[in-house]
Amino acid sequence: MNDSQQASCSRKPASTNLSEYNIASNPPMLNPEEAEEDRKHMQKIIAALRYYQKYCYARVNKTESYLNSLPKRHQDMLAKYRNHLRVIRDCIDENQKVIRKMLRDNVDFIDMDGSEQIYVAQHDIDGHATKIRRQDMEHAQSTLKLIARDWSASCAEEREQSYKPIIDAIEEFFKPSEFALNEVKILVPGAGLGRLTYELAYRGYECEGNEVSYFMLIASYFVLNLCTEENKYTLYPWVHQFVNNLRMADQVMPIRFPDICPAKNPPKGNLMMAAGDFLEVYKTPNSYDCVATCFFIDCANNIVDFIETIFRILKPGGIWVNLGPLLYHFSDIQGENSIEPTFENLEVIIKMVGFEFLRSQTGVRTKYAQNPQSMLKSEYESLFWICRKPENAVDRIDDSSHCDDEYDELIDGGVGSSSNSSRYEDNYSNGYRNAYQHQ
Amino acid sequence: MNDSQQASCSRKPASTNLSEYNIASNPPMLNPEEAEEDRKHMQKIIAALRYYQKYCYARVNKTESYLNSLPKRHQDMLAKYRNHLRVIRDCIDENQKVIRKMLRDNVDFIDMDGSEQIYVAQHDIDGHATKIRRQDMEHAQSTLKLIARDWSASCAEEREQSYKPIIDAIEEFFKPSEFALNEVKILVPGAGLGRLTYELAYRGYECEGNEVSYFMLIASYFVLNLCTEENKYTLYPWVHQFVNNLRMADQVMPIRFPDICPAKNPPKGNLMMAAGDFLEVYKTPNSYDCVATCFFIDCANNIVDFIETIFRILKPGGIWVNLGPLLYHFSDIQGENSIEPTFENLEVIIKMVGFEFLRSQTGVRTKYAQNPQSMLKSEYESLFWICRKPENAVDRIDDSSHCDDEYDELIDGGVGSSSNSSRYEDNYSNGYRNAYQHQ
Repeated sequence: MNDSQQASCSRKPASTNLSEYNIASNPPMLNPEEAEEDRKHMQKIIAALRYYQKYCYARVNKTESYLNSLPKRHQDMLAKYRNHLRVIRDCIDENQKVIRKMLRDNVDFIDMDGSEQIYVAQHDIDGHATKIRRQDMEHAQSTLKLIARDWSASCAEEREQSYKPIIDAIEEFFKPSEFALNEVKILVPGAGLGRLTYELAYRGYECEGNEVSYFMLIASYFVLNLCTEENKYTLYPWVHQFVNNLRMADQVMPIRFPDICPAKNPPKGNLMMAAGDFLEVYKTPNSYDCVATCFFIDCANNIVDFIETIFRILKPGGIWVNLGPLLYHFSDIQGENSIEPTFENLEVIIKMVGFEFLRSQTGVRTKYAQNPQSMLKSEYESLFWICRKPENAVDRIDDSSHCDDEYDELIDGGVGSSSNSSRYEDNYSNGYRNAYQHQ
Repeated sequence: MNDSQQASCSRKPASTNLSEYNIASNPPMLNPEEAEEDRKHMQKIIAALRYYQKYCYARVNKTESYLNSLPKRHQDMLAKYRNHLRVIRDCIDENQKVIRKMLRDNVDFIDMDGSEQIYVAQHDIDGHATKIRRQDMEHAQSTLKLIARDWSASCAEEREQSYKPIIDAIEEFFKPSEFALNEVKILVPGAGLGRLTYELAYRGYECEGNEVSYFMLIASYFVLNLCTEENKYTLYPWVHQFVNNLRMADQVMPIRFPDICPAKNPPKGNLMMAAGDFLEVYKTPNSYDCVATCFFIDCANNIVDFIETIFRILKPGGIWVNLGPLLYHFSDIQGENSIEPTFENLEVIIKMVGFEFLRSQTGVRTKYAQNPQSMLKSEYESLFWICRKPENAVDRIDDSSHCDDEYDELIDGGVGSSSNSSRYEDNYSNGYRNAYQHQ
């Protein structure tokens, strides 16, 4: 069984029929402990999503309560602002409605193994609100922004900046006129809300997204499989931003999604989403013709692990297309390990791992979930590269004596002998490896 | 005694002569409790500044220790990165040297009242490192970036963006050809490292900076009074940024300061820096011809308090020049109150307080302590306005019946009667009101 099959194990047995879409029918590959860990993790995410409204209300209530303590004169001056807080609450209500719909319709994805449904009682959410971590609530809010980024017309420019260079590179390398695209296997680790994965499958490639966050998996499952109408839903993704606002309307600007409906525009190629930690799930060498990473490789504790894994799972001659700004996610996160090599370091490391650079570009202007109305404008001058695993590539990791000899040539004064031990041990690992498939 | 005099009370009695500069000679205005609070606060800041190197080393050590745990193969690939960590340590050493020099030379500013020196024992710093808050250490690191922003040639563009519009507006209103500039009293609340204050005094205006942070006061005192040579000192302000780096050299890019030496280029006008909370220090009406705020008004729990205070302390006919992006500092800070009116709300409030808008502009592109080499590029589309306190202005705060009648016209359905109580009670207040003077 290869990684892809392993990754595609289902959250639901094949016996269940959904009206329009089937979920991949392989049985779960989790042992009982992993399944229990997975169930608890999913419960936490669901609790956070269901708690969204209360959490956001608490933020507004605090402001309103401070407002009430101000002198009457100030309160009069702030009358329109007070009304604005009411509008913000309405937007939070609307967001919660979409989240509720997402959770309700997702029941078949969320239901663990068909026998035991993930159950999070309301009194657990109300009574143990303190157990819901602020970080999870921030992820819930981010998920709304990322729905906007991937699936709303208003973020079309962002997608053009981030996804088009990758799609263009893949279409240039695997030309539709020269390849049977449904035989070109592409992996998108860090697939997020799934738009890049969808766009590649839509063009005919066999495309698998991989994502570790259940926030994103729940939302992408909803968009990819359960949205039946274009722009059916309305979200207020910027409602949580209380600073840098010019007009009240900016904070409560709605977006509609999905701008394109995958159900009505099914991809020509096979599309699958695989849940789980990239390093845990993908271990089988020579599996993919292309790995496409977009704002992903900096999500590693040790980026060298990511680079080696990408190298290993690529077929000889396969390509790695990457775009992003090296915003190392574990840098300065307490309790997490992190190294933060610069691009200058990475270029050498990528070559040492065995890749050839076909293209390398700096300064690619890309926004990431930028509130278009905000007075704060942030963008990255991202890196973009296309690397090839040579046809005659040797997996240096499994052939340490050979590779270390070569390293000695690359590194002045480098000394031989390597060890595989503890390579993954410092990486965060969640046992869940489940998936769903768009058909 | 007006606010200005109150604010200029000294940290040192007049009997002490410094070689080149005198510190304002008014006796401290603090009662014993306030003086003790002030002393403890200053101790905390000095401890944080002296702990800078150890704190930064700990960050690098953690990375290095993780690096040491990686497989030999990875360590070989990361050899240059490991060396980069050594260079980072060297830069931290150099930064600490400058900080040490700053603290040593500042002894007369730091020494509380001439009788009892602020003493922070090394073993207190070493032994109670956990007591030094992460937030203070971040302020120490920010201080280095703000030295670069205000006093290095490499941040000239930032100053052009932020300070030039303000200086131009003031020179347009108080034309050097029409005014005796040394009689035009300007206040710069949130003076930070003092460059805008210096630039205005340099042009001949009587300019007083106000700043609440001792980090900034210590650093600005050093630059304004104790630097005797241009570009004498070298700092590495971006060494703490481990993400979004293209080249190793980018993270360890030096800056030199001061690009201009106030000691050798003394201002024509009187220049003074006053320590303390803006709302605590400035209460006397009709004191200033101009208040210039740059990235400041969003530092309020209740921005209306700031607007009213600015209105009150301005002389009738005086102007308020403001530039900034409404990045409300207390938004989402635990334990702090905050309201976050948008510009749309503020415009109305500013008029209600009594100001007339002479100019109002949005979208003024301004960077703030932006690492020029970073792959992350952030800038604000700032607000800029010039407001005038009318010649016939009435202090509405002290005449509540009158003002509430007027408010009723401005706010639909507004109801009269106001109260002054608790106006300041929710604002953070440190008792210290000390100052130094550049002569």
